Amino acid sequence: MKRLTALDLGFIHLERRNQPLHVAYLTLVRPPADAPADFVQTLVARLRSYATPLPPFNQRLESRLGKGFWVEDPEFDIEQHVIHLALPKPGTMAQLLAMVSRMHASHLDRAYPLWRTYIIEGVEGGQVAIYSKVHHAVADGVAGTRLFLRSMSADASEILPPPWASPPLGRRPRPSNLLAAPVDGVVKFASRFGGAFDNVPAIWRELRQTAKERREGHPDALNGTCAPATILNRPISASRRYLARSYPLARIKAAGRTLGCTVNDIMLAMCSHALRQYLLDQRALPAEPLIVGVPMSTRRDKSDVGNQISFLLANLGTHLADPAERLRVIKASVEHSKARFATMKPGAILGYAAAQMAPGLANMLFAPKRGHLAFNLVISNVPGPRSPVYWQGCAVEGMFPVSVLADGMALNITASSRADALDFGVLACRRTLPKVESLMDYLGDGLEAVERLARVAIAVGKPVAFASAVD
Amino acid sequence: MKRLTALDLGFIHLERRNQPLHVAYLTLVRPPADAPADFVQTLVARLRSYATPLPPFNQRLESRLGKGFWVEDPEFDIEQHVIHLALPKPGTMAQLLAMVSRMHASHLDRAYPLWRTYIIEGVEGGQVAIYSKVHHAVADGVAGTRLFLRSMSADASEILPPPWASPPLGRRPRPSNLLAAPVDGVVKFASRFGGAFDNVPAIWRELRQTAKERREGHPDALNGTCAPATILNRPISASRRYLARSYPLARIKAAGRTLGCTVNDIMLAMCSHALRQYLLDQRALPAEPLIVGVPMSTRRDKSDVGNQISFLLANLGTHLADPAERLRVIKASVEHSKARFATMKPGAILGYAAAQMAPGLANMLFAPKRGHLAFNLVISNVPGPRSPVYWQGCAVEGMFPVSVLADGMALNITASSRADALDFGVLACRRTLPKVESLMDYLGDGLEAVERLARVAIAVGKPVAFASAVD
Repeated sequence: MKRLTALDLGFIHLERRNQPLHVAYLTLVRPPADAPADFVQTLVARLRSYATPLPPFNQRLESRLGKGFWVEDPEFDIEQHVIHLALPKPGTMAQLLAMVSRMHASHLDRAYPLWRTYIIEGVEGGQVAIYSKVHHAVADGVAGTRLFLRSMSADASEILPPPWASPPLGRRPRPSNLLAAPVDGVVKFASRFGGAFDNVPAIWRELRQTAKERREGHPDALNGTCAPATILNRPISASRRYLARSYPLARIKAAGRTLGCTVNDIMLAMCSHALRQYLLDQRALPAEPLIVGVPMSTRRDKSDVGNQISFLLANLGTHLADPAERLRVIKASVEHSKARFATMKPGAILGYAAAQMAPGLANMLFAPKRGHLAFNLVISNVPGPRSPVYWQGCAVEGMFPVSVLADGMALNITASSRADALDFGVLACRRTLPKVESLMDYLGDGLEAVERLARVAIAVGKPVAFASAVD
Repeated sequence: MKRLTALDLGFIHLERRNQPLHVAYLTLVRPPADAPADFVQTLVARLRSYATPLPPFNQRLESRLGKGFWVEDPEFDIEQHVIHLALPKPGTMAQLLAMVSRMHASHLDRAYPLWRTYIIEGVEGGQVAIYSKVHHAVADGVAGTRLFLRSMSADASEILPPPWASPPLGRRPRPSNLLAAPVDGVVKFASRFGGAFDNVPAIWRELRQTAKERREGHPDALNGTCAPATILNRPISASRRYLARSYPLARIKAAGRTLGCTVNDIMLAMCSHALRQYLLDQRALPAEPLIVGVPMSTRRDKSDVGNQISFLLANLGTHLADPAERLRVIKASVEHSKARFATMKPGAILGYAAAQMAPGLANMLFAPKRGHLAFNLVISNVPGPRSPVYWQGCAVEGMFPVSVLADGMALNITASSRADALDFGVLACRRTLPKVESLMDYLGDGLEAVERLARVAIAVGKPVAFASAVD
């Protein structure tokens, strides 16, 4: 029996009928060329044979006197957790995404351990889809990825136990180079979260500093009250629209190298372009720039359960028509946020972020109101495998994150890096955001716009406008 | 815009995370012998072409100042309501029932009209399954059946619009003989519910009479405090186990004729046998008999929206090992309940039932406690089509009701009569009731036990023990 942390318990208490708080992955794998016709049936049977999971997969939630505990479930039943599905013919990606949208809208039953894996056959072209969900109180995105990566191998012939039967990292040797370095290195000065209260004086100092910078007109200082009201910040329905597409990491990295930007900067620029276009289509582009919350893992050990997250705030520059100007604004605001975090002790980061977000979080749960939005949406980038990986003998061809929405936060964009691709998962409220499918095409347009900037930079010998602005 | 009745609003307010309050049908149909391979794809496309539904299917719930209203949804989207699924191979009935169990556990989104229809292909043997759900606030079981029957025809070649696009009965001529006479004729002295408060003096008179009868030791008088505590009356999880099986109506009717019993009496005897066996297996049979609530439709017009239901209480005699004794107890208690209802004005029936159930209903929502259970479970029998029917050109081969559970009510048995069969649907909490699959076999054993009684009755020239007790 283990007591839930305050943050994990928060994810239980903040869950609503229209706001389930689980996170998931949609993974696409390709069975071996010589796989028999009943390959998926055999796969499901093999997965179900791991019927005695390890913690936290064998634990369910129990509430006692208002406190939450994880307790072992003596009646664990693998049939409740590993589900075999099929797409009807022809099994298009659109059909798969519609199915994932419905599955992600449905709650996990708190009477059972809070995870479920669906194995979906019948995908056009021969791939098999795996939709795996786990409650946010059990694992955050990074921990979830690590849990999943544990069961993957660089070797097609090595079949490892599934995540729920795989001993945690640290208990057995694993090739650590499977996992990419956490994006942008923010975690490198962060450590295991603990004792937020010890950091209260530091947090107040930081908040005073932020307020002072804003009074003095520092252009890159952001706090929890800068985000404009948008259509993204309305109450949500219980229905979802999930979209997924991969973009080559090589293109993103090449543009970044030329322009002196990180993968994260380029990803934010793609999102900025897409959101600007989408909001223009909807005649809903605010005059002020969208502010995004960028979760950063604050773990630096290899632990893969529980939540250790913090946020950066970044200015997306969506009010600017010029892609070069937008990229400059994004880069400057991210660097300002990071510099601020760099001066804080690890434990203070989470407390600072929580304090800064408090009005916004409260807002998320009630009516959004201008002046009290912490950010317009969350965009994150979760590190995935660095080199090609296999799962149950199948090549992994896509690992698309499926994140969380909340009242007042009707859109989420999360990407996961893989050997040669950045896999984007866009989750939207089906009712609040009409025609959100176009966002996926606009992300590609955004990448092309950045690549045009890079070509100009090469032609003139340095990043035009952009370089001069940040030098 | 139409205001919800107090009863319908109750179904909204009583809904919980672990207690969704929708009702459904699992219908099995057989496509024509010459159906092409893409028959189901074409069927789904045709169903989706009816994209402008009639009330109540185009209405969603809106709350204003604590009151509930049905308002037309201007953004109605048929893709949200008609879903195409497939079973993975081999597509056994067990796989289908597991899928229905999961679908029935998931809530309808209140941001949309509260109904959904799933068309499921890949059922072993060539049938197509249709799982159609509607919120209890929109329609009760009888209304739901009528809604569905509207779209069925006695003629295989007649393809009628689906329920959501079919004008209500009364607005167009329909062969009324499709619908069986409501079971046991209770509805024949009942009318549209209205003005329960007008009946308060009558209700109090009835409750006083019931209490008096019990004080005087009348063996068949039941009120809301007779049911023993059982394992069926514990808090429930959000997960379900759904079971379905057909029994030939001819067998049930033949036994009933010989024994002087109605179809409903025989159905209750089958349930009594099955519950006794199941509770014996679980070492959980109470010393006192199980009490069941039997919903009766109180509508006598042909209206097919809204809720007009009442309850009878019946003694299942589960404490008795002798099937003849059990049948006698069941028949006597049903007849006593009906006689009481027969003396009341129609409007009073629902009010009386509600008053009698109040402690039990409160109990259902909180911790079950001996002495305050209105009944142990609900068993109902919904009238279906009298003669063979077709839906979208397919022969209907099963219409299995999927009902509602609540905290303290972990089991429901609902049957639907069809031309030549009684289709049983058993819904159980997956967690609370282990090995509940055996109930289905025990229902069959229960029918055989009744048939043995009938054979003895024929052999001796009259229903032994049984006839003498009711004569």
